[in-house]
Order: sequence, then C-alpha cells, then structure tokens
Amino acid sequence: MKVYRYPENPLITPEDVKPSRPDLEVVCVFNAGVASCRGETILLLRVAERAIGDERCARVPVLECGKDGSCIVVKEFKRDDSSCDFSDPRVIATPDQVFLTTISHLRVARSKDGRKFTVDPNPGLYPDRPSESFGLEDPRITEIGGTYYIAYKSVSPTGICVSLATTTDFYEFQKLGHIFCPENLDVCIFPEKVHGRYAALHRPVPRFLGSLNMWVAYSPDLMHWGDHHFLLGTEAGSWDSGRTGGGAVPIRTEKGWLEIYHGATPDDHYCLGAVLLDLNEPHKVIARGREPIMKPEAEYETHGFMPNVVFSCGALADGDKLTIYYGAADMVIAGAELSISEILESLS
Amino acid sequence: MKVYRYPENPLITPEDVKPSRPDLEVVCVFNAGVASCRGETILLLRVAERAIGDERCARVPVLECGKDGSCIVVKEFKRDDSSCDFSDPRVIATPDQVFLTTISHLRVARSKDGRKFTVDPNPGLYPDRPSESFGLEDPRITEIGGTYYIAYKSVSPTGICVSLATTTDFYEFQKLGHIFCPENLDVCIFPEKVHGRYAALHRPVPRFLGSLNMWVAYSPDLMHWGDHHFLLGTEAGSWDSGRTGGGAVPIRTEKGWLEIYHGATPDDHYCLGAVLLDLNEPHKVIARGREPIMKPEAEYETHGFMPNVVFSCGALADGDKLTIYYGAADMVIAGAELSISEILESLS
Repeated sequence: MKVYRYPENPLITPEDVKPSRPDLEVVCVFNAGVASCRGETILLLRVAERAIGDERCARVPVLECGKDGSCIVVKEFKRDDSSCDFSDPRVIATPDQVFLTTISHLRVARSKDGRKFTVDPNPGLYPDRPSESFGLEDPRITEIGGTYYIAYKSVSPTGICVSLATTTDFYEFQKLGHIFCPENLDVCIFPEKVHGRYAALHRPVPRFLGSLNMWVAYSPDLMHWGDHHFLLGTEAGSWDSGRTGGGAVPIRTEKGWLEIYHGATPDDHYCLGAVLLDLNEPHKVIARGREPIMKPEAEYETHGFMPNVVFSCGALADGDKLTIYYGAADMVIAGAELSISEILESLS
Repeated sequence: MKVYRYPENPLITPEDVKPSRPDLEVVCVFNAGVASCRGETILLLRVAERAIGDERCARVPVLECGKDGSCIVVKEFKRDDSSCDFSDPRVIATPDQVFLTTISHLRVARSKDGRKFTVDPNPGLYPDRPSESFGLEDPRITEIGGTYYIAYKSVSPTGICVSLATTTDFYEFQKLGHIFCPENLDVCIFPEKVHGRYAALHRPVPRFLGSLNMWVAYSPDLMHWGDHHFLLGTEAGSWDSGRTGGGAVPIRTEKGWLEIYHGATPDDHYCLGAVLLDLNEPHKVIARGREPIMKPEAEYETHGFMPNVVFSCGALADGDKLTIYYGAADMVIAGAELSISEILESLS
C-alpha cells in the first residue's frame, strides 16, 4: 500500500496550541474530527491538558460542577503514596477511584490547503457538566444537509458515553446529550440515511462477555439508536487481535461503504485498516483487509506519549485521493494520502 | 417493612417445568417477567437448563446456528483440565472463552389466583440466532395499548444485549432485535410515554470507568434509545454497595414513579429496594430507601443455586397492594405482598 505522508508532518503539535488556562499545559493534540466547511479543511482537535506537577507531586485537572457553574480544579497526589498506581501515563489509580492525568477539550484548526493549519486560540467544545468531568475526546464529524454532527466521548467517573453536538460554522456549537451509554466510543455516523434510517458504527466495551469489537446501530433521528448488530471482531494472531474501532466516517463507493478503522494488538500497537460494508445493510461485511493500510513507521508515530499509535478520526475523499488525518503516538496530528482504488483492491 | 410471603412459596420450582429437550434438565426457574392478560396472571419464566454431566465431565449446552437453522449442541469439558476454571457454578472459563453452564429460555406460566401456576409444556421464546447462543434471560414485560413489550437479555460470546419482543396473548411472540448494545441488562420500559417519549431504566456494565449503576434512556418508538442519564449509583457500605439494577416495571403513583429495584453487595447478597422518580423527568430521583424493602430470609431465599438472592423482574399493583414475584436463590419463583403506601413512606 502506497502511503504518502505529508513532508510537513507533524502538522500540529502541542506547541501550536495555546492552553485553555494559564495553569495548564498542552501535552497532546491528536485524534481530530475532520470536515470541509466553506472552502476550508477543518480539524476538530482533541487537546489534552495537564496540570503542572513536579517530582514529588502529580497534579490532575478535573471539572467540578456546582450550582454556579463548572470549573476545572487541580487535585494532588503524592508520588510516594504506595496506595496509588502511577504506572500508566494516562491514568492515576487510587484505592477508591481512577483519575485521568489529562483533561481533553475540542479545539478547531482551520486550513486553506489541508496542510498548514491555524489553531483557534480558544476551545470550541469544553467540558461543562458532570458527565464531562474527565473531558471530551475523539470527535467524528458527519455533515448531513449543511449541519455538522459531532459524535465525541464524554468521560466522567460515571462512565464513558458518546455525546452528540452540532454546528453549522465551527464557531457556534450546540450540545445535544448522550447518544450511546457507557461504555462506548468510536462512533462514526454515516453521511446519509441507509434504507430510511441513519446508521452509525460504534464500539462497545463490555466487561463480562465479548471483546472490543465494532457494531452498527440505526436511528430515526440521530439522537436515539437501536437495532444493534455485531459488525467486525478481532482476529487472533492478527494486527487487530486486541481491538477494532471505527475511525473515519464511512465513505460511499460503488462497491460499498469504505471504512477506515483502527485495530490494535493487546499491547496497544495501533494501525489503520480498511473494511467494505454493504451499501444497503452496512452491518454486513463485504470484504476486509488482512493487512493494515498504514502502520506506525515515521519517527513521530513510533515515539511520543503512547508510542506506536496511528489513530484516525476522519478523512477526506476527493476523487481517488483519500487524505487521512490521524493522531500519531497520541501526541501530534499528521496527514497522509492514499488511493481509494488501491485500498479497495487490497480487500478480500 | 411488612412483607407477606405467600405460604405456598416457592410457587414454581424446576420440578414443575418440563425440559425443552430430553437430554437437558431444568436446574433453575427464576427471574420472571410479570403481566396481567385476559384475567390471568402471567409469569414469563427464565428457565435455565443444563446438559447432564458426571463427575469426570462437565457438559454445556450451546446454540449453534447454520444455514439450515439453529440447534443446541452439548460441549464437553473434562473436570481435571487445569486450564479451565469451574469455581463459579454459572460459568466455565477456558483459556480462549467463557461458557455458561446453563442455557436459558423464556416460558409462560399462567394463574387465575396469582399463586397457583400452570407452566406451559413448551418454551415461549427460545434462542434461535447467533446473538442468543448462550440463551435468553430476565424478561421485563410492559403493556402499552394492548401490546406486551418484553425486554430481555440475549446472551452470546459477542456480548450481553437487551432485545425486544412483543406479544398480545402470550401464545405468539415476535422478536424485534437488539435495543441496547453490550454490555447491558435490567431494562424496564415505563408503561406510558413521559413528556412525549418512551422511557426505560437500564443498567450498563462498563469496564474501565463507572460502576454497576442504573441509567435512564428515552425513545420515540421503543426500538431506538438515547438521551442517556445516570440515575442511581451504588452507595459505599450500604446493602446496594456492589450494584443496582431495575427490577419491576415502574409503577405510577401520585408522588412519582415507584421503582422496585435490586441491589447487591460485592459478594452477591441481593436485596430489593425502592426508589421514587420524578413523574415528568424520571431520570431525577425524588427519594430513595436507605434500607431494603425485602432481604433474603426464607429458607428458599437463603439456600439454592446462588444463596441469598431475591431478584424481581416484575410486580403487579392493585390499589395499595403490591404483589412482587421474584427469583429466590436463582433457583425458584416466589411471591410476596407489600403495601405501596408503606413503601412510599419509607423513602427519604
């Protein structure tokens, strides 16, 4: 598979993003939703911020909500507290509760050429309610009839939900509430109705039975989802043996819906793959790639906050050219071009 | 709290239920959906069957689906195979997969007086598709406009979903598909629309963040669900510190929706409790009982397949009298009468 990585990569790094508050620092900018709007390429960035800690003390930003509104507060954990687990850089586990080391919001970046982006100085979508107290993450953007629907993770101690927001211009946003209950993520809404209903990919995270597999759901109105179908499982011994999850919003082709998804091994080596879904019944797989279409290879993909991760939340199709934007090593944004026909020919 | 347990208890035991196949035995009959239909009290029993094993060999019934239909097959596991875990009577864990020791279907029992039941000789709802290969469990029945909507767990290696079926007479049933994706259970659909939408209690089972808490969702059509709200969490040190989950279909009272739910400690001591929900916004708790309304006390509740379990999937209100049917020790069906006004007065 020919992958043309932009020589400008990484396109956006934490240094390009102004913190939302002076006492926070941006550590990761990654996993961006992608849209075309008014002649511009829009990236809706996941911006992960942390409180500035030191050798003795880890500091964690958490949203607190009261009657007068919401505010990020900083909680402190002493690093020599043996009751706490600091081994995963994303998480601090106390005996009572898990905390995330960063809190994410969503920020717009705009570009005329798809390579050079200007990042808005302020957040676009910011946590502001109890169900978002650990942040907003990993948006996917679907344009339907001039409205952009943004499906994103809202994370809190009560669970990881998927919420919906809308915008028409990427300046004003409206939050509409939870469309998938805990624990779920990687929701990609199809760009048109299928057989009279909206459709979405989603990725439940079950506890007792089942693996980290992709499912399809249907909806009459984008807010209420049901008729869930198992779609794509992990394959033992394969590059996606640990998990699969939707990546880009599905792309209509003559042969079926082309979905660029992510898969990972159990030790979190994330690649991108492709699968072709039935045009009328997208819970049916027509063909699947046995190999990834893209693996972590560039230095900014193999080194970073979480090494060896390429993870896409969106792509733009223009004729045969597919521009994939992706988070690299959970730390920066990069872009690459692939051929849609070459991807389709690789599926069996 | 005064609890009048029927002197006839247990009302239905495994001996009262004819196996669905000659090579299976009924080991548990419990967790029944409840309805009134044509002057009769209907229980839609969960009937758990197992394959007859011996000291050397455990045998597990599993549905297999092919092009020509579906059929229960019996898988064998040698008890001296140290790679398998037989410690939980409900589960056999192999290195590759978890199996349930029993497979459940749903069976109708009918009664004129609510105490003496006649069990149908054949199953009402039987597993017949891949997503039901480990069985059907724990139905809740909601009557709306003469149609009975049955929400039940469909269990398979791909996950525990909640599915919907309908009937008008409890002789013919129609399966409609999955309404909640993995991992979810304890879905109780409200008996009327609330502010123009249907409502349901549900109990997601998240893996990474969140506990075993009750949530509320809304729907325009009973098939597609969204606008999820966290409802009722576990309380540390309390009788429901391990989990909460919907029990009976909510009962409309002047003060709010009365919900009889189950709670358990982390070591699976299951009691019944009560909570009062806002009539117009049932994702808001008005009052909650600090003590259970019913604890395992009778011999058939403290001894059985899973000791110390009272677990209800349905109740019938008649004036102030509430008749709760419940699974006792995950093995038999029992009934008890309580006073609705006394329950309401106990909430704070």
